[in-house]
Amino acid sequence: MRIVALAGGIGGARFLRGLLAVTPSSEITVIGNTGDDISLYGLRVCPDLDTVMYTLGGGINEEQGWGRQKESYVVKEELAAYGVEPQWFGLGDRDFATHIVRTQMIDAGYPLSAVTEALCARWEPGVRLIPMSDDRTETHVVISDEQGRRAVHFQEWWVRLRASVPAEQIILVGADEAKPAPGVLQAIADADVVILPPSNPVVSIGTILQIKGIREALEAKTVVGVSPIVGGAPVRGMADACLTAIGVDTTAQAVLELYGSPLMDGWLVAEEDAGTALDGVLVEARPLIMHDVESAGAIAQAALDLATEIAARRGTAPQGEDAR
Amino acid sequence: MRIVALAGGIGGARFLRGLLAVTPSSEITVIGNTGDDISLYGLRVCPDLDTVMYTLGGGINEEQGWGRQKESYVVKEELAAYGVEPQWFGLGDRDFATHIVRTQMIDAGYPLSAVTEALCARWEPGVRLIPMSDDRTETHVVISDEQGRRAVHFQEWWVRLRASVPAEQIILVGADEAKPAPGVLQAIADADVVILPPSNPVVSIGTILQIKGIREALEAKTVVGVSPIVGGAPVRGMADACLTAIGVDTTAQAVLELYGSPLMDGWLVAEEDAGTALDGVLVEARPLIMHDVESAGAIAQAALDLATEIAARRGTAPQGEDAR
Repeated sequence: MRIVALAGGIGGARFLRGLLAVTPSSEITVIGNTGDDISLYGLRVCPDLDTVMYTLGGGINEEQGWGRQKESYVVKEELAAYGVEPQWFGLGDRDFATHIVRTQMIDAGYPLSAVTEALCARWEPGVRLIPMSDDRTETHVVISDEQGRRAVHFQEWWVRLRASVPAEQIILVGADEAKPAPGVLQAIADADVVILPPSNPVVSIGTILQIKGIREALEAKTVVGVSPIVGGAPVRGMADACLTAIGVDTTAQAVLELYGSPLMDGWLVAEEDAGTALDGVLVEARPLIMHDVESAGAIAQAALDLATEIAARRGTAPQGEDAR
Repeated sequence: MRIVALAGGIGGARFLRGLLAVTPSSEITVIGNTGDDISLYGLRVCPDLDTVMYTLGGGINEEQGWGRQKESYVVKEELAAYGVEPQWFGLGDRDFATHIVRTQMIDAGYPLSAVTEALCARWEPGVRLIPMSDDRTETHVVISDEQGRRAVHFQEWWVRLRASVPAEQIILVGADEAKPAPGVLQAIADADVVILPPSNPVVSIGTILQIKGIREALEAKTVVGVSPIVGGAPVRGMADACLTAIGVDTTAQAVLELYGSPLMDGWLVAEEDAGTALDGVLVEARPLIMHDVESAGAIAQAALDLATEIAARRGTAPQGEDAR
């Protein structure tokens, strides 16, 4: 079975680990969000790609969900001793090596997709990880604070301000010019099913959907999503702050409407959100909390089962031995 | 008293620490060698500038003479895990931060002299440290091995090959175009005395002397050197391998002749090298081994005393209260 999944950071990566566990013989292509990429100290940092790579490759810090396990922070402390800003972004020494390799390759002329493939040669994540675009895009957030109304990089709002200042607007700078990375549209065209993990619907999945051609390609496929909102609150992270910024309620229903039809074909919600409904979308309620790889795998299996059910109702079955 | 010193790495830095100890009220400008600078992993590394900065700023690894004290090697290990070459150059995590700051500033358009000044704002080395040139030069070494006759970067010959393959030629690539960094010629013009520490006469002092205008400026001044060769062998390092490459004997006499007159006015040699002589140069023999800051200071004081003696014989005394 050929599966395509879009993914942001922690939530997406943990879901994918479950998906991998229940589909050992599938071909999985992950289209990663690069809207929250940032240049720090002259180095190119791709937080979501790295979280997916480290999580699936066995190098993730399990407690915090991002960054490397057994990490140290010597370089960061030394940069602070030189007075270098910003000091609010926590890059560890092991993580620095990834950014050094990435930056050297990018400066040598390799596109981000080729760099990501090279980094994955070490991590062997078990999926094909492609950035949504080789073109640089950056999510900026418009806020008003004592410095006035201004746009800050998403990471400054998310990490430094902990989303405590309301986002008035969320803008993907560069979205108009960005093309899907090589392989993205082909992987979608070849997919038996497309899954939207419970990643942030605005700054992760929403960002990927803004890249020209991706939404249109997905509308032709069977797309099943897992709600990142359970009982009116994000499962993790601060998705509510992002949804509010774009005028969308923090509910499983509102996120489904945000994604909309004809994009969506199936939608998994938590039991407390049963009753969520949209024309043309098959909705199923089940436990959605990912405690561990096993529970994440059960949710992933439920998403695949929902895709099978959708195909059966339409009289076309998904391909491959993993389909049930 | 205004003192200018040229300097390479470890030997020069240890000598300068002694010089600083015996001339607390002098203005010292150090012109640092940048011929062995190298770009590694996309980062600009200036080994000699950093050795001077760390040594005088209290951050040096005393045992090895280069790099930072209390150093760790996490980034290097991670780069190796990615298969990144070269793996023979030992950059520690604390050291990496210096190169990250330097590279970011250079990429932002600052010349190396401004970057060095910014780095020194943290280290407060007690001297004004200026790179010999803001223009990029690189010492390359011609060798013949199983890969044929070829030029390698000085660091590859020095660090990876430990100078075990004979150097057939030593070339400062870029020397023809390189101009002295801002402040270099003025500091020389203003100097009461110029000191050549016991640095490598070929790839450290010899490199600085190749930058257009520096030798000429020095010839107008009282220049006193400390022999890096004692009893036919380098005090430290592998200067003999460099001298052989340019057809110069490894003796205090041959190095004095290499520097030559009218550049040199005074030459300190070890007691076993008494008898070293060159027309126009006042030679003095004394112990030249730097065991510690105190013995390095005694050698520095002897160099200053020799400069005073030279000036007295010429009927012009060096300026300033430190002159004795």
